[in-house]
Parts: sequence; C-alpha cells; structure tokens
Amino acid sequence: LSVEEDLSKFFNPRSVAVIGASDNPSKLGYDVFKNLREYGGRVYPVNVRREYVQGVKAFKSVLDIPDEVDLAVIVVPREYVAGVMRECGEKGVKAAVIITAGFSEVGEEGARLEREVISIARKYGIRVIGPNCVGIMNTWNNLNATFVTKAKRGYVAFVSQSGALGAAIIYKTIKERVGFSKFISVGNMADVDFADLMRYLANDPETKAIALYVEGVKNGRKFLQAAREVSRVKPVIALKGGRSASGSRAVASHTGSLAGNYRVYEAAFRQSGILVAETIDELLSMARAFTQPLPRGGRVAILTNAGGLGVLLTDEVERRGLRMAKLSEETVGRLREVLLPIASLKNPVDTVAGARGREYRECVKALVKDPNVDILIVACVVPTFASMSRTEHAEGVAEAVKEVKPDKPILAAFLAGHVSEDAKELLESAGIPNYERPEDAASAAKALVTYATYRRAAAGEAASKA
Amino acid sequence: LSVEEDLSKFFNPRSVAVIGASDNPSKLGYDVFKNLREYGGRVYPVNVRREYVQGVKAFKSVLDIPDEVDLAVIVVPREYVAGVMRECGEKGVKAAVIITAGFSEVGEEGARLEREVISIARKYGIRVIGPNCVGIMNTWNNLNATFVTKAKRGYVAFVSQSGALGAAIIYKTIKERVGFSKFISVGNMADVDFADLMRYLANDPETKAIALYVEGVKNGRKFLQAAREVSRVKPVIALKGGRSASGSRAVASHTGSLAGNYRVYEAAFRQSGILVAETIDELLSMARAFTQPLPRGGRVAILTNAGGLGVLLTDEVERRGLRMAKLSEETVGRLREVLLPIASLKNPVDTVAGARGREYRECVKALVKDPNVDILIVACVVPTFASMSRTEHAEGVAEAVKEVKPDKPILAAFLAGHVSEDAKELLESAGIPNYERPEDAASAAKALVTYATYRRAAAGEAASKA
Repeated sequence: LSVEEDLSKFFNPRSVAVIGASDNPSKLGYDVFKNLREYGGRVYPVNVRREYVQGVKAFKSVLDIPDEVDLAVIVVPREYVAGVMRECGEKGVKAAVIITAGFSEVGEEGARLEREVISIARKYGIRVIGPNCVGIMNTWNNLNATFVTKAKRGYVAFVSQSGALGAAIIYKTIKERVGFSKFISVGNMADVDFADLMRYLANDPETKAIALYVEGVKNGRKFLQAAREVSRVKPVIALKGGRSASGSRAVASHTGSLAGNYRVYEAAFRQSGILVAETIDELLSMARAFTQPLPRGGRVAILTNAGGLGVLLTDEVERRGLRMAKLSEETVGRLREVLLPIASLKNPVDTVAGARGREYRECVKALVKDPNVDILIVACVVPTFASMSRTEHAEGVAEAVKEVKPDKPILAAFLAGHVSEDAKELLESAGIPNYERPEDAASAAKALVTYATYRRAAAGEAASKA
Repeated sequence: LSVEEDLSKFFNPRSVAVIGASDNPSKLGYDVFKNLREYGGRVYPVNVRREYVQGVKAFKSVLDIPDEVDLAVIVVPREYVAGVMRECGEKGVKAAVIITAGFSEVGEEGARLEREVISIARKYGIRVIGPNCVGIMNTWNNLNATFVTKAKRGYVAFVSQSGALGAAIIYKTIKERVGFSKFISVGNMADVDFADLMRYLANDPETKAIALYVEGVKNGRKFLQAAREVSRVKPVIALKGGRSASGSRAVASHTGSLAGNYRVYEAAFRQSGILVAETIDELLSMARAFTQPLPRGGRVAILTNAGGLGVLLTDEVERRGLRMAKLSEETVGRLREVLLPIASLKNPVDTVAGARGREYRECVKALVKDPNVDILIVACVVPTFASMSRTEHAEGVAEAVKEVKPDKPILAAFLAGHVSEDAKELLESAGIPNYERPEDAASAAKALVTYATYRRAAAGEAASKA
C-alpha cells in the first residue's frame, strides 16, 4: 500500500486509561471499564471522585497514572472532553476513543465542541475514533473498549457508522456463531475515518475481509482512493444505509451526513472494487467467504441430500449470474460408483436422503477435483434419523478437505436449525464458512467470483502499466 | 367456499394405525411411531413380525385392530403398500399418509405401483397424502405423523412439495421460535394436492395464513381456482422452486414435475391472489404477519431507538413500494412531550438510545392513533446497559397494545440476537410478530398491504356482480 496507517495503538495498546470509569451501573463508564478488565494489557480507571473503581485503584487524572498510556477511552460528559484531551496530550497519549455523545450530531454547539476537541488532538498528535460511538474491539487480544458484549473471534473486520446497529449485529452474530477480527464504531468520524481504517485493516493479518456499514462519506475522494488501493490486497464489502429517498433523509437526522444519491454511491463503490451488499445478512455472508481461496471462474457445483434445497440454491446461484458447472464424465462416473441408483448425478448432485458421511466425503473429493468446477457449495439438511449421526455429513466434508487440500473455494449450506450446532461448528473449525440460508451461500459465492475477477483485472492493469 | 374439503380425519383422527411401526432405530417406522405416541388420540402399531413395538402391543394387520381406524400412516417397503392399502380399505380407513418412497419419482415401475395404489384408494374411498413424503403435523393437538421433530405451535399452515426442505424449515423455525398450525409434506401428490389442502385450511380456525413451497403443479386450473377462492378468505403465500433454467431442470429430476416458466407461474399466482415470496425467510415472514388486522392503506410509521436500524428499515419499506407516513401535528406534539430534545420526531421516529419502556409505550400509543399511519413497525436494538431491563421496551409495546387495542397492524423489529430471547417471546405472546431482520419486517408489511388491497378488490368485484 502507498500509505499505511498506523493505528496499532488503538488495537494493541500496552496500556489503556478509561477516563470516566465508574462504579455506577447506570453510567456507560461502568460497562466500558468492566469490559476492558478482561484485556491482557494494563488498564487504569480514571475518576475524579473515587479512589477505587470496581475494586481497582483509580486515578484523578490520566496525568497521575505511573505508566505510559497508549490508549485513552473517554466516557466523561461532553463538557469535560476537551479538558481530558488536553491532559491526554500532556501525558503523551497518541490514541483516543471518544465514546461520549452530544457533538456534531446534535447541532451547532456540539459541532463547535467537536472542532475544539479535534484541534487539541491535532496539536498533540492524538488520533481520535469518535466521538459519539460505541467504541472498538479486537477479538484476537480480548480488547473490548465498548459498552456492549464482546464479539466472537473471526476473520471479518466490521466498521460501522451506526453504533447501535453495530451492537445489534454483534448480538446477532454471537447467536449465530459468526466471528469478527475487529469491530470499530466510527461515530462522527471527526478524525479517523473509513479510509484510515481500511488502510490499517489491509495490513491486519487476522482480517481477511473488511465489512462496512456506511451512511455517508465526508471526503469521497479519500474514501474511494483508499478503497481502490485496499481492494487490491483484500476485499472491502459495503452496505449503504439511506438508499431510498426517505432513508436518505433519515441519515441526515441520524449521523448528520449526506447520504447522497445511491446510484452515484453504488457506481463509485463498484469502480473502486468495493463489493456492494443489500442487507446486513448479505454483508456478513459475503465477508465470511474470504477464508476460502479465490475461484478461477464462476462455475458452481452443488451437492445436496435434499432435492428442494438443491433447487433453491440453483435458483439463487443463477439469479446472481453465476453458472452451474457441467460436470466432467469422470466425475459423473465416480459419483455413480458412490451413490444410490436413484441419486441425481447432474448438477445439482442430489445424493437423496439416505447418503451418509462417507458418501459426502467421496462426492466432495470428486467434485473439487473436477476441472469444470470453480466453486463447490455443499448443502445438507442435517438428518434426525436415529440411525445417523448429526455430524457425519459435516465430518465427511472436513475429511475430504483435509485429504484433497483443494485450491478452490468450498462453501457449506448446512440447514441444521436447532438439530445440530455441532455440525456447523465442525465445518467452521475446518475453515469452511457455513450458511443456513440458500441465498446467503449464493451471495458468498458471487462475492468470491466478483472479487476474483476484480483482482485479476487490477493485476492486469498494474502489469500493463509496468 | 364453494367446495369444502373434509380432510379432518388426517388432522384430527380419533385413532391412528402406524403400519410399519418398528423397534429398529434405523427404520423410519421407528421415528414415526415414536413421534405419534405423544398424540392424544389412540395410536396402534402394526408390524407383521412383532408382538410389541416400543413396548406397545402390536397388530399383524390393520384388520386385527379392535377399534375403528381414522388414519393410517404407512411406512412399509413399497412392494407391500398396495396390499396394506387393500387391508385399510376393508377396515374402513378413509385417510392414509403414505411416507414410503420409490413411486412415480423414481421411474416407470414406481409410477405403475403408484397408479395401482391410487386405484385401490379410489375403490375404497380412501384419501391419500403422499407417497414419498415426510408426513403431516397438527401442532394444536400434538399430532406428529412424520419422522422429524415436531414444529412449534403457531398460526401458519405450511405445505411443502419438498419433504427434506420442509423438515429443514421446521428445524430452523424451532430455533427461531416461529410456529406453525399444520405442516403437510405433500410428496408426489398422487391424490391430495395443494388445491385440496388450501380449501381445507381455509376453514381451519388455527390457520391465519397458508404458506406453500411449490416446485410444480399438475392441474394448474384446479390449483388456481382453489387459490382464487381461498384468497378471499385468508392469504396464500407461495415460494416457487425452479425459477431459474437450471433450477427448473433440477425440479424435473427432484419431484418429477415440470417447473414450467416462472414468469407464467408468477403472473398466474398473482392473478389468483397468491402472494409471491422469493426466499424461505420471506415466505415465513409474510405468513406470520397475518395474526395482525389488515391495514387500510400502505403508509408506514417506524419507531426506533437506533438511527441505523431506522435508516435500513426505511430503505426496505420504500424499496417495496410502501410509503413512509407523514405524521400528524398532534402526533409530533405528543412525541415531543415524551422524548428527549435530541430525538428525531420525523418518521422514522428515533427516540435515541436513552429511551426506556415508558417512552416506547407512549410513542406506540401516539403513532397507532395517528390517522395518517396505516402500519406501525416498532424497531429496537435491545439495550444491554446495566441500568435498563432487556424486556422493558417489549413490555412498553405490549402495554400500549393492551391499552389502545389498535385496529391496525403492528409489527416488531427487535434486534435482540443473543441478548434477549425474553423480549421476543414477550412480543410474540402479545400477538405481535417479531422480525430480527429489517427486510423481513418490511416484507411482512408489504404482504399485509398487498393482501388487503386484493381483498378489497375481490370484495368490490363480488359486490358489483351481485
């Protein structure tokens, strides 16, 4: 990348000060400090009135802390934020997350305060995330500098311009066992913005894809330039809020930013290599796909033990402009050996309900080896027959992957509902993203193909320039 | 309705014979008999070789049962099905669910057997569901004549042309706490078909909406005629499998029926009053809405405590052609009294995160009373602040509904994830369907408006003919 952003003090601080840490459960400073106590690094509460906060020795000011402070998390009332920032500056703090609200999002007086805070930050060289945000998380070192529940660990970095929506997505993903590498609630983006974060995350080894919830962008040129550069390294996927006329007006009263014309945004996004999602589930489904290798083309094979599921998946795959692969003679021959005579050997391959883990393993092996197949979607209605294990199909897939080590993407669409969390866990821990809705698996496949195509084109462009 | 179907022996049998009931967990007859033992009515195992099945006295033939038999559930190998059906006929059985597979779906030999079975059924006046199906459920009397887990109780009848997909949907809805009134896996539809079931379900008091998963229809005229008549009484919602070219070919090898051209299907569906869904989640979301009164128009109000959620909901509402309501002066005045100055009083109404149960209650009351509002969507990111109860917003909504008894629909979009199953339960038990994805709530609102419009037009047509 031409410009690397060093935001590591935000995500890997040696020490953290929580300014406004509280013993009172009705204050955000209570939740923030409680969450941060789980962090491996050193965490200091700062509270002007208390000697101890949640049983930990507190300091009246960040200046009193007998240690360097890498990150300040600020949750004091807005009228104290400027003063606190000055003290942080004197202390040599270089990164501040300002959770406190009541700044540019509420009118002119707040906007004036925000400008003051940022000019202090500039003076002392402090980078600022916020104000008016939920905070940040790094699941890989248990840093939860927010007032909400910690996300599950995973490979998607999620950057949200809506704090509460971001929190809701975390609650949802915890339930669905979907993980994130980083979570960043950007708030008013008075300093650190989408562009800075994309550049930082491009170099983050735990982040395989960057998912954005965008309401409005202040500096469009900077945003698109960063997206263009970062997209050459790893995928950026965006969901735009305020696509409709009334939605766009709602954005103006929500984040105070201009949502702008969606068609313009969409075109600019796509030109910069950003993958566009239409819903939260699509955003997450697409981003989760990138633990897989990129496909060489767009020909999809589907394996299923339930005809209806194969039909719906095929519909969703073709609706997105992907093609169903024509299986090679050799593959069909191998499937014929493995499966019952009533199985359907055309793509989608329907093993029928009797197929077991062994058949799944052999079919997956045959299908990923087929030169006509670029992506495999392994679907399954997890059986509840007393005679079958509820994980054997997932095990079969994991075994096949271990054996073949395929260099093409495999996505799972195991519809397990309440009957087998284990089957899903097993797939995910074998590195295969699982989707419980056919449309999500198809969106994931489409994202892989779109991004692979963009990467090839970008590489070709770079080569022809050289 | 011009023709009522009496299929009550299927869904409210006084006594059931399970022919092929088994002690061997590797047989479907094991699961089917085990599931049926929970039924309130009398259930008899029939097994040619065993004196007892699962500890219950068994009979060698249905003819040996010293009781009338209303319903026979048949799970013997296919070569015995015709013989068993003859015995059922002699016994006076009038309803049979044939779970056994290997009939017209597997080729000419199977098709010949199926014709034989049906000609026996006709001779004795037995109605048949199946063959090649998962079975049927009536959640309201604990009848589970299938080999899969029992669905949760609810108000949607779900008729599926794919058995395994139907099972997967049941597993999914159990996890998501969504309920069904009846579940019917229609299999090959050799006798009882979609049309018969729609007519029966039209008169079922526990069914508020009929959801269909359709791959292909044999008698299009009969299907559409039934849909037209039933749609005047209650909503029919359909998801068509085999919409794409390859999906349509997959249908042919799956159920052996012709998927046909989707545009033709879709137009015919809509003309007959059928609401068309594009995904499983949309199908269920739409169907679940009909516990609510029908709206008088299409103007939607949204209440939210999270700006981003309001924005996404607004986008989804407008994308479906619904309009955002312009709130009356009186409503805005009332909201101003109730909410903080930084709240947004325009539609979507954003209370901001500090709002509590009381504010939700007062806002809901004001919004449903507004003559400019036809539908209210109450959204909420369930808060995790130590100072707030995780159910107070849901309680506020339930209290408002109890107080006002609104004659307009209220839908909830509480994004609770793992943090509050209780909030969702509370809404559902107050009769308010809750959706965890903005697009599902919007689809539900759209379904209510589309169906209300159809009903008014159909009533007008009827009046003008009279």
